[in-house]
Amino acid sequence: MADSQQVDDSPDRQVRPEIYDEDGALSSVWLDGVVAAIERDDTDYLREHVGELHESELGDLLEHLDPEERQALIRLMGTSFDFTALTEVDEAIRLEIVEAMPNEQIAEVVRELDSDDAVYILEDLDEEDRKEILDQLPFRERIRFRRALEYPEESAGRRMQTEFVAVPPFWTVGQTIDYMRDEEGLPDRFSQVFVIDPSFKLLGAVDLDQILRTKRLGKIEDIMHETRHAIPATMDQEEAAQIFEQYDLLSAAVVDENERLVGILTIDDVVDVIQEEAEEDIRRLGGVGDEELSDTVLTTSRSRVPWLLVNLLTAFLAASVIQIFDATIQQIVALAVLMPIVAGMGGNAASQTMTVTVRALATRDLDIYNAARIIRRELGVGFINGVVFAMLIGVVAGWWFSNAQIGGIIAAAMIINMLAAALAGILIPLLLDKIGVDPAVASTVFVTTVTDVTGFFAFLGLATWWFGMG
Amino acid sequence: MADSQQVDDSPDRQVRPEIYDEDGALSSVWLDGVVAAIERDDTDYLREHVGELHESELGDLLEHLDPEERQALIRLMGTSFDFTALTEVDEAIRLEIVEAMPNEQIAEVVRELDSDDAVYILEDLDEEDRKEILDQLPFRERIRFRRALEYPEESAGRRMQTEFVAVPPFWTVGQTIDYMRDEEGLPDRFSQVFVIDPSFKLLGAVDLDQILRTKRLGKIEDIMHETRHAIPATMDQEEAAQIFEQYDLLSAAVVDENERLVGILTIDDVVDVIQEEAEEDIRRLGGVGDEELSDTVLTTSRSRVPWLLVNLLTAFLAASVIQIFDATIQQIVALAVLMPIVAGMGGNAASQTMTVTVRALATRDLDIYNAARIIRRELGVGFINGVVFAMLIGVVAGWWFSNAQIGGIIAAAMIINMLAAALAGILIPLLLDKIGVDPAVASTVFVTTVTDVTGFFAFLGLATWWFGMG
Repeated sequence: MADSQQVDDSPDRQVRPEIYDEDGALSSVWLDGVVAAIERDDTDYLREHVGELHESELGDLLEHLDPEERQALIRLMGTSFDFTALTEVDEAIRLEIVEAMPNEQIAEVVRELDSDDAVYILEDLDEEDRKEILDQLPFRERIRFRRALEYPEESAGRRMQTEFVAVPPFWTVGQTIDYMRDEEGLPDRFSQVFVIDPSFKLLGAVDLDQILRTKRLGKIEDIMHETRHAIPATMDQEEAAQIFEQYDLLSAAVVDENERLVGILTIDDVVDVIQEEAEEDIRRLGGVGDEELSDTVLTTSRSRVPWLLVNLLTAFLAASVIQIFDATIQQIVALAVLMPIVAGMGGNAASQTMTVTVRALATRDLDIYNAARIIRRELGVGFINGVVFAMLIGVVAGWWFSNAQIGGIIAAAMIINMLAAALAGILIPLLLDKIGVDPAVASTVFVTTVTDVTGFFAFLGLATWWFGMG
Repeated sequence: MADSQQVDDSPDRQVRPEIYDEDGALSSVWLDGVVAAIERDDTDYLREHVGELHESELGDLLEHLDPEERQALIRLMGTSFDFTALTEVDEAIRLEIVEAMPNEQIAEVVRELDSDDAVYILEDLDEEDRKEILDQLPFRERIRFRRALEYPEESAGRRMQTEFVAVPPFWTVGQTIDYMRDEEGLPDRFSQVFVIDPSFKLLGAVDLDQILRTKRLGKIEDIMHETRHAIPATMDQEEAAQIFEQYDLLSAAVVDENERLVGILTIDDVVDVIQEEAEEDIRRLGGVGDEELSDTVLTTSRSRVPWLLVNLLTAFLAASVIQIFDATIQQIVALAVLMPIVAGMGGNAASQTMTVTVRALATRDLDIYNAARIIRRELGVGFINGVVFAMLIGVVAGWWFSNAQIGGIIAAAMIINMLAAALAGILIPLLLDKIGVDPAVASTVFVTTVTDVTGFFAFLGLATWWFGMG
């Protein structure tokens, strides 16, 4: 972040509106003004300063207000509040706002939204609320939303937009352009026109620039390209995002099991998905679930307990390894002083290998063809760094306790543990992935267990054997 | 990954071509076919099966071949090899391929590419090679590439495409459409037409769907919207990506210091940037730099040494804390057995807090307005989980060594370290961010140092004091 802030200090202001300061954070002056206006129920001020905001800017504002202020803002702005902003805030805040609204009002709101935004809000509600809201919608919307909600969570069908432009293949470019000029119900933005047969079966698509480059008499079927990348509605959103990324798609048709066009997925939704999914891996590697900044203390601590609990168990495992050698430690306390170094360095080396492996699996750069090569590489790296740090630690430790033997023992233990770290760091994620467990979730725990246990066992074991104790 | 593979087993095949298997990995059958063809110099087979691939598919193929096979493939395919694929492979592979080519050939290649792809390849080369290649290019390209290369690395100016469609404001929609129908030199794909004055100063932009909805006589200046989000060429690519994301842009004008239109940034490039930047944070938290799967053993181990070295120093720091209490340990070895648990649990709790903080800073969800609230929350979480696990560990430890006092001591130490973990986990990233250091790079080391030192000191210190030793 830091560097980016340096690069674009002055230009920034042209790009983002006044409400942001140079660092891209909400401007305190502006924010204070809004809060003050909320406190004195100044509807006009709010309509003027908040009414025109982009949905994402309004979302930023909501996230910076207290619950009461949020409610007040929405109440004061009435119809001029853009509820699309709800798709831009934490789930916790979205729920808090929506649950404070009567179902009638929610129905009013979702009717105005694009179908994908509406579904985004509806999917968080509980069954009966959702049903009650859907029943209050006009038939057409009700069917659309129901259909989208029937697809699994995080599927393309959930994210898709059911508004799109579709024309028959036998139309000319001229007809198509005239249709777009006259038709009212077009989506706000679109970059493709889809070509369908009477049964809504998808035949192909035409990019708008293609239409614009073709003479009016050109036939759609002549300039359309068959859509190689029609997305099945049941496909997982991450899978869909990868296809967008690989083929640089701006939008893609979403089709049902009968190849019928049911909606479109657009790049801007996909960008959010890509962000989310990378986010997910970071959090899982760090041992936190899908918690959000707006979560309460209790929710947060509860959500973090499981991971800590698993780590506690493995910590006891490591401790019991130490206990095996307590006799040795009693006679050479230096071992107790040095043993965390061996375990810790192994843990760090392993987490390096693991990070690379987990990401390579997520982005599918790692597969059976190069797995063998990567394993060999990591073993090589583990060995080289093992030797390097073995010498370093050996010398320092030997000098510290003026005991060359301890230096030799810790050096040997270090090499062993660095090799174990390399193996664990790559094999455990690979294995988890094979058996269908998300490597990002579970790898850290198992890997550090291996390096702790190996580290303590190798170091204390070697010492016990060398000094002929135990 | 796992779940996504389950969801879309059969549909997958429609979406990705035959060359991929159900898991989205390159099909072994297909790959073997290609390799065999390379070995028997079967140009026709390669032209037929590889010539038609999408650049990203060709990129995948290259990454799965050995260096020799890659060279052979490129040699055999000659002109039918799509060098755009070079933008889809690891930097190491790209360099290996490009450096094997004579500069004349590289010049030939880059002339055929879109400017952004060309720059992507040129920026990796060393000064004189680049100069020699540029000198062989026609004047127009040379100027374009030079200009792009003058902007800082990872800036919008480096990523931008210098091909775009720009028209004067006084043109009608009809004129614009006719121009696009007749003009040959248009970019392959575009979703916006830019409006400029004679001095190339940016006046605004029109989305293609807007043009298609407007009657031929409509004036461009009447339907154009002023581009609120013109990106300064010097802006960092991550900053630019955040603006694309926030405002759901498909493409944006890139302007120089005089507001002149110099190029455009398109969403598909931005998607890659977003991916890269999230990637960067994961790697930095895991203690690995910008290494790539294709890097050699030596490159990799060298790049990982610094982080391990820093961790080694902090490990010695923690060890010296233990040494202070070696007398105590000698008398109660149980302490040596239990102390890693206290330190380890603190480290895990801290990494949870740190992960959340680092990401919140990267996505700018965390700023001075909510910092205080988040710090309070993390302290609360640290205290609650501290108490929970203190009781757990206290009981187990007390029972394990049938010594209630040790149970009490480890429980107290645990609460202290969990609080230290919470504070370190949020304050250290915040501090690093304030002083302009990327929190993702440095946080882990400092945070774990704090939890190790505090853990050992609290546990062993309390024991020494309680049992009146030392």
